[in-house]
Amino acid sequence: MKKSYQPNLTDISSLGEFRLIDHLTRNVKTYHAGTVKGVGDDAAVIDNAKEMTIVTKDLLVEGVHFDMVYTPLKHLGYKAVTVNLSDVYAMNALPKQIIIGLAVSSRFSLEALEELYAGMLLACEKYQVDLAGGDTTTSPYGMTLSITAIGHAPKEKITYRSGAQTNDILCVSGNLGAAYCGLLVLQREKQVFKANPNMQPKIADYSFVLERQLKPEPRRDIVEALGKTGVVPTSMIDISDGLASEILHLCKNSGKGAAIYEDKLPFDQRTVVAANEFNIDPTTCALSGGEDYELLFTISQKDYEKIKDLPEITPIGHITDDEQGKHLITSSGQFVKLTAQGWDSFGKRAEENNPDS
Amino acid sequence: MKKSYQPNLTDISSLGEFRLIDHLTRNVKTYHAGTVKGVGDDAAVIDNAKEMTIVTKDLLVEGVHFDMVYTPLKHLGYKAVTVNLSDVYAMNALPKQIIIGLAVSSRFSLEALEELYAGMLLACEKYQVDLAGGDTTTSPYGMTLSITAIGHAPKEKITYRSGAQTNDILCVSGNLGAAYCGLLVLQREKQVFKANPNMQPKIADYSFVLERQLKPEPRRDIVEALGKTGVVPTSMIDISDGLASEILHLCKNSGKGAAIYEDKLPFDQRTVVAANEFNIDPTTCALSGGEDYELLFTISQKDYEKIKDLPEITPIGHITDDEQGKHLITSSGQFVKLTAQGWDSFGKRAEENNPDS
Repeated sequence: MKKSYQPNLTDISSLGEFRLIDHLTRNVKTYHAGTVKGVGDDAAVIDNAKEMTIVTKDLLVEGVHFDMVYTPLKHLGYKAVTVNLSDVYAMNALPKQIIIGLAVSSRFSLEALEELYAGMLLACEKYQVDLAGGDTTTSPYGMTLSITAIGHAPKEKITYRSGAQTNDILCVSGNLGAAYCGLLVLQREKQVFKANPNMQPKIADYSFVLERQLKPEPRRDIVEALGKTGVVPTSMIDISDGLASEILHLCKNSGKGAAIYEDKLPFDQRTVVAANEFNIDPTTCALSGGEDYELLFTISQKDYEKIKDLPEITPIGHITDDEQGKHLITSSGQFVKLTAQGWDSFGKRAEENNPDS
Repeated sequence: MKKSYQPNLTDISSLGEFRLIDHLTRNVKTYHAGTVKGVGDDAAVIDNAKEMTIVTKDLLVEGVHFDMVYTPLKHLGYKAVTVNLSDVYAMNALPKQIIIGLAVSSRFSLEALEELYAGMLLACEKYQVDLAGGDTTTSPYGMTLSITAIGHAPKEKITYRSGAQTNDILCVSGNLGAAYCGLLVLQREKQVFKANPNMQPKIADYSFVLERQLKPEPRRDIVEALGKTGVVPTSMIDISDGLASEILHLCKNSGKGAAIYEDKLPFDQRTVVAANEFNIDPTTCALSGGEDYELLFTISQKDYEKIKDLPEITPIGHITDDEQGKHLITSSGQFVKLTAQGWDSFGKRAEENNPDS
């Protein structure tokens, strides 16, 4: 893609790396006394007293994870942060710092990067997370975002993927499949736009599924609500690649099987309407769609009473012995083997989403 | 660049993300009891008791920070890790974990990524650092590496860029300018190769400067040696962008000036020979070349006796009040104002180094 020379926009190469970082981080606030040193040294320094430190990193690559044609930069910045926070919540921990890595080609203006940063800082504010440093560099093509999130939790609260026990109850937060329907709407409107650039996109009816795709909210509320009950899940993972893929991860790491029930899967009515319009089963969107950033977790049966009245938590099945396999039991009573058809960045979909296209 | 279909190499898209990660991380060992959870969960978990946590991240982008024409992948992996460790040492801390972010286009084979990982794991072993997780994804073009290094240090030992005081002695470790001479050799041989692909590269005479460019070693030994003397530098930074740029960083963050003496700058004789061959002043290589990954630090005059006999530490000048500016005093006694002509990834050099060229 050629650089567009728009007269009102500032070429980032006119600033140089250090002035660019100074400029982009001028509004950074910190929310935690433990963030001893943030932006502006070789490394961030974090004073975390006696808790465990949790560190995670997700990359977002243009043409693979996002398409600039339909991703507003502020949303992209917000999402780049929240998908990383989601990984920390999935450990039953609270994120407190992020470090930003940003590689951008010179086709992005300073104003574009300001939008991106505005989105990242909005997420930092909403989730009370400190931007504590990073690295900014140029790229020959497109944009790659690499965010590292750092969290803390007492040792006894941390939930791994490996702790699920036979007969534990499998639960999900919120509702499933919406983010994938949002992606389908965006891809359809991109095709319409390519065919006729004067056509206005029809997106007003789809604001729910679009927001789930473009601006996912990680489930801090669920981690906090579980914390208040004193219940520690036996295992937990966030749903980034689709429910089926995440269940297989939990089962593999725990050495267990699982059975989930189609008629227990939580859907928002607006997801069902959108899925129907695309002639896709909402169950397929939930199992294989991905990017819902809900939490999937297992709890011991003895703890179920304590959490059953919490809002937005739905039991969808249970853990079995490994030999029983991993199955979806459909509304008509059939057993369907769960397979990972989740979002795979090395698979077909990635190739369809090239910045050159 | 088109993908080369070499029949003996394995297409990474045949594995998918999860099998690729499993494959690449199958030889990962851990060296620290504090690395509670490494590869294979939403996030790494680090038990760091009562010390401070140090987190840093550097991106390496193909066509900006490295050129595949002359960068062996094993060296690239090694360097990607060591430049991040260097940032942790520059805080006077010891790195203990890394998290790897890798975005690669499908032109890289599995065997190529194995080479890359072999280099990263070699650096982990040499510096006793645990690979504790990461994210691997595809990229429409080229390769981007994003490494996060995590270290620990007692609060009172951490050195920032901001602690330099007037009259403190400015010291550097090792020798300067070699990495830039190594880059010049590589760039020259690339031009020769483009003109005549049958020409053998003349690199045997340049093994010292080439190794400094391709396989930099961060200065754990200096941090450890300083630790044994009980001396804590008043400020410290690693030399990634060139000595001039790093001195300006220390001065800016500390609100001070500095004077350094040309005839005190430490050079290896092999650097002087290579620089002369390119008709470049070795002092220019040291000031503006970058990538030496030596440590630049300031110590209080009262501490000088304690460190003066340590090997590979050279006093090169002193800190002044801010009003006195930042100067190099040349061998002939002239005062030359220090300017940051360091390696700037948004500047000219980056554009010359495009994977397409």
